[in-house]
Amino acid sequence: MTYCVAVRVDQGLVMLSDTRTNAGMDNIARFRKSFTYHVPGERAITLLCSGNLSITQGVKSLLSKAIKESAFDPDVETILNCDTMYRVAQIIGAAMQAMQQRYRENIEMGGSGASASIMVAGQRRGGKPRLYLVYSAGNFIEATEDTPFFQIGEHKYGKPILDRIIARETSLEDATKAVLVSMDSTLRSNLSVGMPLDLVVIPTDMFDFRVRTRIEADNEEFARISQSWSAALRKGFEDLPNVLG
Amino acid sequence: MTYCVAVRVDQGLVMLSDTRTNAGMDNIARFRKSFTYHVPGERAITLLCSGNLSITQGVKSLLSKAIKESAFDPDVETILNCDTMYRVAQIIGAAMQAMQQRYRENIEMGGSGASASIMVAGQRRGGKPRLYLVYSAGNFIEATEDTPFFQIGEHKYGKPILDRIIARETSLEDATKAVLVSMDSTLRSNLSVGMPLDLVVIPTDMFDFRVRTRIEADNEEFARISQSWSAALRKGFEDLPNVLG
Repeated sequence: MTYCVAVRVDQGLVMLSDTRTNAGMDNIARFRKSFTYHVPGERAITLLCSGNLSITQGVKSLLSKAIKESAFDPDVETILNCDTMYRVAQIIGAAMQAMQQRYRENIEMGGSGASASIMVAGQRRGGKPRLYLVYSAGNFIEATEDTPFFQIGEHKYGKPILDRIIARETSLEDATKAVLVSMDSTLRSNLSVGMPLDLVVIPTDMFDFRVRTRIEADNEEFARISQSWSAALRKGFEDLPNVLG
Repeated sequence: MTYCVAVRVDQGLVMLSDTRTNAGMDNIARFRKSFTYHVPGERAITLLCSGNLSITQGVKSLLSKAIKESAFDPDVETILNCDTMYRVAQIIGAAMQAMQQRYRENIEMGGSGASASIMVAGQRRGGKPRLYLVYSAGNFIEATEDTPFFQIGEHKYGKPILDRIIARETSLEDATKAVLVSMDSTLRSNLSVGMPLDLVVIPTDMFDFRVRTRIEADNEEFARISQSWSAALRKGFEDLPNVLG
């Protein structure tokens, strides 16, 4: 499985993903699910991928191929030179459609699933921070003020804390803590989600990454968050009013 | 959907269930999922039902029919006169098998699901408190020291707090708080789980119910738990170490 979460608040975008991939219970591997693209000072974009790995890797190959071609032919449209973040989502949706058309039927004939989804978060100069979720069919939805975060994969364990904390006014600091706590709850309850984690933070109007880091299993900062949260839960639990009288 | 949770700790058994039942998103009704049976001072048993409602109601009918018959014919074995809690689980498993054999094929031909599961918790004089989970096939498993709780239905939102709190040494008071907090998280994150709730507490060696109550939507005690937990989470969250420096 996978757990990826992306948040869009007024102060910017926060994306967190795990790195565990499995083809069946006994074939577990580590693959990066978070990918960054940027033109420093002009745009910064992060993709979080889940689902069929061959499909999402294929989508990324198509995006990279276009970026390479555009170095020689500026007319080639890419996620790094297109006009809007909306157009970025469309380009990724089109690449998703192309990969699905090429492989879906054969993948499903083999008994596997071809579904995949990609969260796209970013901002370009002249536009606002945007967060999209691109589905297997190439269609996509955008995070709004009412629903300022998306999750993909094993999302339920880590949803309650997001429901409580995340609103558009939430600070970037709090949004980052919230996704880390959300991931911590998921890691504790589901073996198919695993360390290390990839964290990306894109502040509004920076057009660059403030954080783009891998959090390894022995990361002290994450351990402090995890321990502090555990202690707070335990304390909060002890302070609950008695119910059995 | 449904959310039912049952805990077995050294001090006793705690069972909590919601009451929302739906056949499709637009046909939502309220049905009790928690049922108690007892011979005061000799045994106390609680069933928590989920899945196909006609199947679980059919199982209860078979159990009740046998209990009525045993009033006239003491040789009829029932969950109230059988020798062990293990035998109680077997009797319920046999009733489940009977209902599945009678209806499953036709239910599935109509496009619906016939699956159901029943948690059985109780203690009889001379035995220990036991907690079983009976599946559609009539087979069952028992909660052990390693896994002292079972959940059925929409279980993921409310699992992290149970994973953190529940162990066999946990007090009955804390186990009761934990299932209430677990339900509170589930209610917040999933519309298909709804108030009121049914709570049952069977202390070890009481052979009766210490608590057997319906918690309505306006219940002040549950509201206090819910508010206290919200405040504790918010406080704990505010106290987390900064991550963005």
